[in-house]
Amino acid sequence: MPITGVDHVVVRVKDLDAGIKDYQSFGLELERTAETPGIGKQAFFPLADGGFIELVAPTDPNSAVGKAIEGRGEGIHTIAVAVEDIEKTVEALKASGARLIGAENPGGQVFIHPKSAHGVLVQLTAKK
Amino acid sequence: MPITGVDHVVVRVKDLDAGIKDYQSFGLELERTAETPGIGKQAFFPLADGGFIELVAPTDPNSAVGKAIEGRGEGIHTIAVAVEDIEKTVEALKASGARLIGAENPGGQVFIHPKSAHGVLVQLTAKK
Repeated sequence: MPITGVDHVVVRVKDLDAGIKDYQSFGLELERTAETPGIGKQAFFPLADGGFIELVAPTDPNSAVGKAIEGRGEGIHTIAVAVEDIEKTVEALKASGARLIGAENPGGQVFIHPKSAHGVLVQLTAKK
Repeated sequence: MPITGVDHVVVRVKDLDAGIKDYQSFGLELERTAETPGIGKQAFFPLADGGFIELVAPTDPNSAVGKAIEGRGEGIHTIAVAVEDIEKTVEALKASGARLIGAENPGGQVFIHPKSAHGVLVQLTAKK
């Protein structure tokens, strides 16, 4: 189940517009914004190597992002790694005893729980 | 000052051996370990796309990593982005008012301070 690289990084911010302004000042180009129920307002900054940086601001204080902002403040929310075969990776992770989130929903997003990854929420994404 | 991709991700852990064991269980291959004064004990896991994941465990509670473990626990410590020209990037970031760490040491490591990047310590590395 080789992890081949970092696909994207999600940064949680309190205010999306303030986050966009600051990340643009680093030379990143805003591609688009979106709003996803259960997640929040998002901004996507593509990178030349094919990955991207995403900012997410909560729209619901009881969402995962809202609770994380409240409890731990702004910062890295998720690291998404690229893997060659998500299904095989999920099976191997289950066998190794790792705690997963979303593994019961075929085709949905799957994460390694921070309890199993030393404080990091690791999303599994398919290698492009 | 284009950021072209994510070069590496540094995860701070309390115990390096426990971290190595868990990250190996994700299918990552340990390349080498090191110990760097002022940083701590490190483990490097190369990725096929050219980047890497690094674990770091403090050897000094008063180091930056030691203090972060104490105050915020385990988790992502640094995201290192690849840029085409570090010097030009530093000049542009200074002009934009971003708070930097290490910019006064030519050739040393340079970071965007978490206060300027919504809680993320962003290291600038040269695109390979």
